Amino acid sequence: MSLERYWEDYAIGEQIATRGRTITDADIRMFIGATDATHPAHVDAQYAAGHPFGRVTAPGALSIGVIDGLVVRYLVPQDLKLAHYGYDKIRFLHPVFPGDTLSMTAEVTAKREKNDGFGLVCFTYRVVNQDGELCIVVEDLQMVERRPAAA
Amino acid sequence: MSLERYWEDYAIGEQIATRGRTITDADIRMFIGATDATHPAHVDAQYAAGHPFGRVTAPGALSIGVIDGLVVRYLVPQDLKLAHYGYDKIRFLHPVFPGDTLSMTAEVTAKREKNDGFGLVCFTYRVVNQDGELCIVVEDLQMVERRPAAA
Amino acid sequence: MSLERYWEDYAIGEQIATRGRTITDADIRMFIGATDATHPAHVDAQYAAGHPFGRVTAPGALSIGVIDGLVVRYLVPQDLKLAHYGYDKIRFLHPVFPGDTLSMTAEVTAKREKNDGFGLVCFTYRVVNQDGELCIVVEDLQMVERRPAAA
Amino acid sequence: MSLERYWEDYAIGEQIATRGRTITDADIRMFIGATDATHPAHVDAQYAAGHPFGRVTAPGALSIGVIDGLVVRYLVPQDLKLAHYGYDKIRFLHPVFPGDTLSMTAEVTAKREKNDGFGLVCFTYRVVNQDGELCIVVEDLQMVERRPAAA
Amino acid sequence: MSLERYWEDYAIGEQIATRGRTITDADIRMFIGATDATHPAHVDAQYAAGHPFGRVTAPGALSIGVIDGLVVRYLVPQDLKLAHYGYDKIRFLHPVFPGDTLSMTAEVTAKREKNDGFGLVCFTYRVVNQDGELCIVVEDLQMVERRPAAA
Amino acid sequence: MSLERYWEDYAIGEQIATRGRTITDADIRMFIGATDATHPAHVDAQYAAGHPFGRVTAPGALSIGVIDGLVVRYLVPQDLKLAHYGYDKIRFLHPVFPGDTLSMTAEVTAKREKNDGFGLVCFTYRVVNQDGELCIVVEDLQMVERRPAAA
Repeated sequence: MSLERYWEDYAIGEQIATRGRTITDADIRMFIGATDATHPAHVDAQYAAGHPFGRVTAPGALSIGVIDGLVVRYLVPQDLKLAHYGYDKIRFLHPVFPGDTLSMTAEVTAKREKNDGFGLVCFTYRVVNQDGELCIVVEDLQMVERRPAAA
Repeated sequence: MSLERYWEDYAIGEQIATRGRTITDADIRMFIGATDATHPAHVDAQYAAGHPFGRVTAPGALSIGVIDGLVVRYLVPQDLKLAHYGYDKIRFLHPVFPGDTLSMTAEVTAKREKNDGFGLVCFTYRVVNQDGELCIVVEDLQMVERRPAAA
Repeated sequence: MSLERYWEDYAIGEQIATRGRTITDADIRMFIGATDATHPAHVDAQYAAGHPFGRVTAPGALSIGVIDGLVVRYLVPQDLKLAHYGYDKIRFLHPVFPGDTLSMTAEVTAKREKNDGFGLVCFTYRVVNQDGELCIVVEDLQMVERRPAAA
Repeated sequence: MSLERYWEDYAIGEQIATRGRTITDADIRMFIGATDATHPAHVDAQYAAGHPFGRVTAPGALSIGVIDGLVVRYLVPQDLKLAHYGYDKIRFLHPVFPGDTLSMTAEVTAKREKNDGFGLVCFTYRVVNQDGELCIVVEDLQMVERRPAAA
Repeated sequence: MSLERYWEDYAIGEQIATRGRTITDADIRMFIGATDATHPAHVDAQYAAGHPFGRVTAPGALSIGVIDGLVVRYLVPQDLKLAHYGYDKIRFLHPVFPGDTLSMTAEVTAKREKNDGFGLVCFTYRVVNQDGELCIVVEDLQMVERRPAAA
Repeated sequence: MSLERYWEDYAIGEQIATRGRTITDADIRMFIGATDATHPAHVDAQYAAGHPFGRVTAPGALSIGVIDGLVVRYLVPQDLKLAHYGYDKIRFLHPVFPGDTLSMTAEVTAKREKNDGFGLVCFTYRVVNQDGELCIVVEDLQMVERRPAAA
């Protein structure tokens, strides 16, 4: 499922699997520097030890970034025909801990005409950790160029 | 609208405005280090000059992180009663450029019972840049503790 | 002890306790990038193994930064009435190692008039690690707005 | 004034001048990642525009780190005879803005016996920006090995 | 010139051109954090102003890293058949300044048998800035799997 | 072997040994942010577990940066008489893993006149890990000022 193509080329049901990305403590620190999104759940091991999860977790919004990294690398490595339209329904189902490796399957789950130049493609990502536990589900909306009429 | 409270305490229509956060080139680089989410649109000034936006933009997923930072700082600075349930409908409406300052208004737009211990609160964020242009709209779902019956 | 108030509102002896912040290897690396303050004691595990402390330590100036982070988050999260005047007497009493979680108690230990608009408040921080060992003592001087005469 | 020597070798009044270090926006972001010490004065250009300083400033604690970097590089580049004892009297006299280049003169201003193995040396740093404005004064206390009796 | 192939598939004289990567001040700071490779030429605007180049430059070793990034992204985005054998003859011909965008052409300039399983391929990169000035020339040696006999 | 001297002062065969630098996961993440040079071998623990090396490795180009850091710190800490001319023959002989501490011996192995103002000095670095395994060999070319005739 290379995304280097026109909106017309996508077929609902297509799937691709990515490799993984390990999330580490350094990712959390850099993410905080880039966003100010700090919280004891992510940086205070003492607080986290007393929390139901028992240890520090990665911020949900960092995982969204890592998923975006997998998209850029494995789905659309050099694509310039896309624009990020938005997300529908992101669900955090299972905590992500430093040391976890996230990978995902992407599936084309919907298509919608937008205008003469572009259409929308909805990709659903099912993101699992190294133990196969389903951590996050994402519905990602990409705006993709339509094939020129003359073409 | 302090969020240091129980699910029952939220009223639909409540609003709060945050201060801003300036997004810089350093934020983009650190975000890439934390996520691998690199793309010519964000790191190649030559490519970006030939693109409709005319210059490099910040990744959409970085803006989600910055919005999360505004939430943590201005809406729920020390709250420990919340868990991030997910997002509904994130829309990228206007590009964010390095140097832009994002701020937002947050509004409680929906509430839903979940179980005996928790309920869901939907916050809608309207994120603008320093010129007041609406850049991003987010529907954020937080899971909030319910007030104990005895309380 | 919210610091969102005037100089007149502080009472000597007031105390507040913060949550913690875990210092990691990533913090040391980012601090070096931000300051050039590198030394074998912080980045060379072989050298550090032969040193009395037996392993790499966090730079003292990084701990000052982390303490500043605890101040910003737990003492004055949104305050805009303060200016940082300086420090008196910082003492490094016990080494801080990667993995340690620092937390502190803050106490108002002195007040001094400065001029018509501002006064000084001295906060003394006693910073401990996760084992309760006293690592650092700081006397921090904040310049705080005085209550307007008419108010 | 090489510091690669014993406590007995320091003479009150000795001076050395360092080169400079330019503080940039990237330094502020990395410092925040390493410490969580974020504040609108350092990351919100809109807020800062309405503040007396007129634009974002570098955190005081970041400047302490940069000064530590100048010490490590220019005063004691490879020294292993020192331990950081603490600071006396740090004063922030003039704001530091992104783009400023800090340099300093260091002077030995006091010496004190500590025990048989070590003595204290107080270095006073006068830190100026590229326009020669005095921004920060620091009294830094280093614990230095004493010359062995047999030597 | 996709590199997702066996050693036998490379032909001397093949060429590919990459997009660019803009080097910024934040890249320099993060590189210093990752390597300790700091020098007044890269972080002291005052010193650099008096140097023949007139302003701060990017470290040569950072440019080697950025070139490696272009290789990973544009030449071998997902390849797992390669191992980095080394470099021959890297020459820094023109300074790289923050704000410059580097891009390059890669050419297969030599091939050498190594053993039954692998062969060496030499890629020569000619790296230019946004003005077309030749900044760096690199001879990069990659060890590539040979085609199995049965294939 | 202080390099604070003229080209004429170098003697072939001179040697110096540096202290070490520990490479960590945070170094890899910051290097990726500074260069975009990401690859599953460095960030995907699952992929790396199935690779002959069995775990994630540091990028070769990061090690080049760390070696540059050792040069700047231990060989030429404040030298301003040098310009980096390039490298000859870099060989990656043994993988570098997060947690490894690299140190090296530097030897002057060649000298070459360049012009009236400068000469070339070739330094050969033999870089070992904490177990003494030879990981990388580098031939580094520095351009050094010649002694003025009148001097």
